Amino acid sequence: MTFTPHGKHLIAGKWVASETTFISDPAEGTAHPFSVGTPELVAQAATAAEEAFWTYGYTSREERAIFLETIADEIEARGDDVTAIGTSESGLPKGRLEGERGRTCGQLRLFAQHIRDGKYLDRRTDGALTDRTPPRPEIRMMERPIGPVAVFGASNFPLAFSTAGGDTAAALAAGCPVVVKGHSAHPGTGEIIAEAIHAAIGRCKLHPGVFSLIQGGNRKVGEALVTHPFIKAVGFTGSLGGGRALFDLCAARPEPIPFFGELGSVNPMFLLPAALKARAHELGAGWAASLAMGAGQFCTNPGIAVVPEGAEGDAFVEATATALRNTGPQVMLTQGIAKAYRDGKARFDSRNSVRPVMTTESEGRTASPNLYEVAAEAFLEDHTLSEEVFGPLGLVVRIGSGEDMPGFARGFEGQLTTTIHMDDGDTDLARKLLPVLERKAGRLLVNGFPTGVEVVDSMVHGGPYPASTNFGATSVGTLAIRRFLRPVSYQNLPKALVEGDLAL
Amino acid sequence: MTFTPHGKHLIAGKWVASETTFISDPAEGTAHPFSVGTPELVAQAATAAEEAFWTYGYTSREERAIFLETIADEIEARGDDVTAIGTSESGLPKGRLEGERGRTCGQLRLFAQHIRDGKYLDRRTDGALTDRTPPRPEIRMMERPIGPVAVFGASNFPLAFSTAGGDTAAALAAGCPVVVKGHSAHPGTGEIIAEAIHAAIGRCKLHPGVFSLIQGGNRKVGEALVTHPFIKAVGFTGSLGGGRALFDLCAARPEPIPFFGELGSVNPMFLLPAALKARAHELGAGWAASLAMGAGQFCTNPGIAVVPEGAEGDAFVEATATALRNTGPQVMLTQGIAKAYRDGKARFDSRNSVRPVMTTESEGRTASPNLYEVAAEAFLEDHTLSEEVFGPLGLVVRIGSGEDMPGFARGFEGQLTTTIHMDDGDTDLARKLLPVLERKAGRLLVNGFPTGVEVVDSMVHGGPYPASTNFGATSVGTLAIRRFLRPVSYQNLPKALVEGDLAL
Repeated sequence: MTFTPHGKHLIAGKWVASETTFISDPAEGTAHPFSVGTPELVAQAATAAEEAFWTYGYTSREERAIFLETIADEIEARGDDVTAIGTSESGLPKGRLEGERGRTCGQLRLFAQHIRDGKYLDRRTDGALTDRTPPRPEIRMMERPIGPVAVFGASNFPLAFSTAGGDTAAALAAGCPVVVKGHSAHPGTGEIIAEAIHAAIGRCKLHPGVFSLIQGGNRKVGEALVTHPFIKAVGFTGSLGGGRALFDLCAARPEPIPFFGELGSVNPMFLLPAALKARAHELGAGWAASLAMGAGQFCTNPGIAVVPEGAEGDAFVEATATALRNTGPQVMLTQGIAKAYRDGKARFDSRNSVRPVMTTESEGRTASPNLYEVAAEAFLEDHTLSEEVFGPLGLVVRIGSGEDMPGFARGFEGQLTTTIHMDDGDTDLARKLLPVLERKAGRLLVNGFPTGVEVVDSMVHGGPYPASTNFGATSVGTLAIRRFLRPVSYQNLPKALVEGDLAL
Repeated sequence: MTFTPHGKHLIAGKWVASETTFISDPAEGTAHPFSVGTPELVAQAATAAEEAFWTYGYTSREERAIFLETIADEIEARGDDVTAIGTSESGLPKGRLEGERGRTCGQLRLFAQHIRDGKYLDRRTDGALTDRTPPRPEIRMMERPIGPVAVFGASNFPLAFSTAGGDTAAALAAGCPVVVKGHSAHPGTGEIIAEAIHAAIGRCKLHPGVFSLIQGGNRKVGEALVTHPFIKAVGFTGSLGGGRALFDLCAARPEPIPFFGELGSVNPMFLLPAALKARAHELGAGWAASLAMGAGQFCTNPGIAVVPEGAEGDAFVEATATALRNTGPQVMLTQGIAKAYRDGKARFDSRNSVRPVMTTESEGRTASPNLYEVAAEAFLEDHTLSEEVFGPLGLVVRIGSGEDMPGFARGFEGQLTTTIHMDDGDTDLARKLLPVLERKAGRLLVNGFPTGVEVVDSMVHGGPYPASTNFGATSVGTLAIRRFLRPVSYQNLPKALVEGDLAL
């Protein structure tokens, strides 16, 4: 590894050290000291972001597109170093980090194209009606960037949902400066990505306040960031507890701001009778693969399968267990996440209503898969069983018959995804289930597994609470830009002032 | 007047009386008893709305368009009675109520056309890529209605911002059942409009839970409504204090929901030097007319004029005062609003920094105009001077020169509107001012007065806090429907399930 992190914050174009440091806890390789963030640094970064907005918020779409593409180029120029520090810190395999780098740069370039196209501005004009009583003046409308945005990256995607991830790309594309609170699970990865953004800012000659990275290590950093008056919105991916605490701070501000939190989900799958009859083994193997992929550390990890009682359901459960037995232990993102996984498993072990199908003991920073089974009635009576266990833990909910599924599904909380496995013979039942499931989730899948989120115009990665704090938004795909825009009407503007994006 | 209110709530198709009543306080004519709402009635209405959603949320756009048009027809069929009870309760003149009825029915018909058109669904399809590794399934996206919506009407628009006003029209158009908390300033007007909606539900054979009206008279009604688990969003127009309290309740729910509150604004106007030089008298007369219109009871009432020091500014102030002197007392919407206006005036009288230009004493339920003047520095030092006084009270802020305006404007809080009065010679200054003003308001006007809000595609009636609680939304115009929609992705849906709006 040629990259050695210096451990500093990037505050408006300057690398700044703090007096106190924390030591990183990589899954492999060398630990490094990193500066701990402070509320004073947050204030400096937010103030610089506000200053930057007066120019960056008025750059042309072409200028911002080039900036996003330059960030992607600069990340790629550091490709091997990014992979090396990323694998070291996260324990994720090299191929995964390389793929994630591709996705991260792809996202930046997608947003560049998206703003070049300009449809996101949603421009509308109602012409003047001079003969009306009273006369109507011309009115134009377009979407404008909202101001500085705070971003909290996720532990489980150190690139695609972090420093230059989807939230940052969407905000910068909209015209909003960004202040990132670095994730303490991958501070070195954050630093090298911040270096790439810093270099892109220099090459594009933008105001340095357009981007700052404040390393964490202290809860006060996040609190100071979301409550700073210059911050106008927050993008967050993380836990329900941490996310809700920051959401509450945003709502309680003198000037409340939107908090776009993506807080996780158990992503239930419904196995309909004809599909189960046709391919119980295949479905079990497929579920096991999706469940255990990346040590189960995906927001869209399918933690629950709703399966009719009977021999075919039993075969599905057995096929899942068999496939999971062949999955060895995998390194988790942090010690804390590994411990939380063990605690989640212990919760299941402590319940009399829950039958262990295939259980393992996970040690240290690793996780091995676990599979449990519960009756639908018992599931509905115990809310804790529907709470996310981050990691490769699956719960089979056995239900009387397929016809019971629509009623049962009403009991679920909000999800990122819901899935139907069906064959032609299940169509009538699926038609009854679909209206319930679409109220529960931002994305509804048929005959697939929810891990794997396409970065496209039609993607919704969000959903009703607690999957997200804002059911009207997505954090993946081009629609994500809408979170950082606000509509403005311009009435009776003289021709001389109809400039820039208004001039279409 | 042929219409005599019976004073009952409309709960899911049934007129229901409560044990306790309050007596209405009309500006003129007969007072009537009205049932006081209760949390139990709220629960009944919300439960019926949730039940109704399973059919109403899946009606065709054409069915909903006809429903909206039928509501408009039913309101018009009661036109004279609506005007009679509306003028009696609100004290607003007959012509105003007739115009507002036209606007209300026009809004309903505009939303009918808007959903027929279907662009609001924002449908997107990313086709399958079967040759890719891994293959990409087809993904479709469209906007879906969110579920039952609570609406709190405004005192100052008993028709257009109340029972069947813009919030109700937008929610019903989206496919969301509505529960209205009736405004105690015009309960009889609410009742006759609820009758019209009730008749339209019957004619269109819809689930009766699609609409309920619960009369107020008790603070617990609103609290129970916004905290009911079946309610998924709130549309509100009213005071900052009341709105913030309800916003806080929505944010603190176990499942937080969006609260779309429009809380008022002082709508500052900036008079640029060349315009002031060319037409000080005309601008003063125009401001006085806008300021005193409808006793100043508009959310977009221009309460503040920022005017350069010097003789031309003095002439503007004198012209305004002269025009206001010719405005007699006007009846206000409620006793409480009239008292709040007197209290607001007393606040100005108590300030040494503020010079009274033209003051009056208002009595009983009436308001007469008042005009004050303050130096820019003193204005910035006293936050209370920038708080809305609901009624015909104007404040002139005298500023050194036009060049000081952009810096000064940064000190304003969020507004519904900001206005520039300018001539050709002011273009350079306007170009500097415009970026500041567009960050402060949802609508920016040139050479006009903000009273008079067009109901069009390009309208934004909203703005940064405290003008509204959600700077990304509008409560007027077709964009208002977006508040009650959420995007949903459908991945790999079989052809048999690609139905309804998805089938485009």
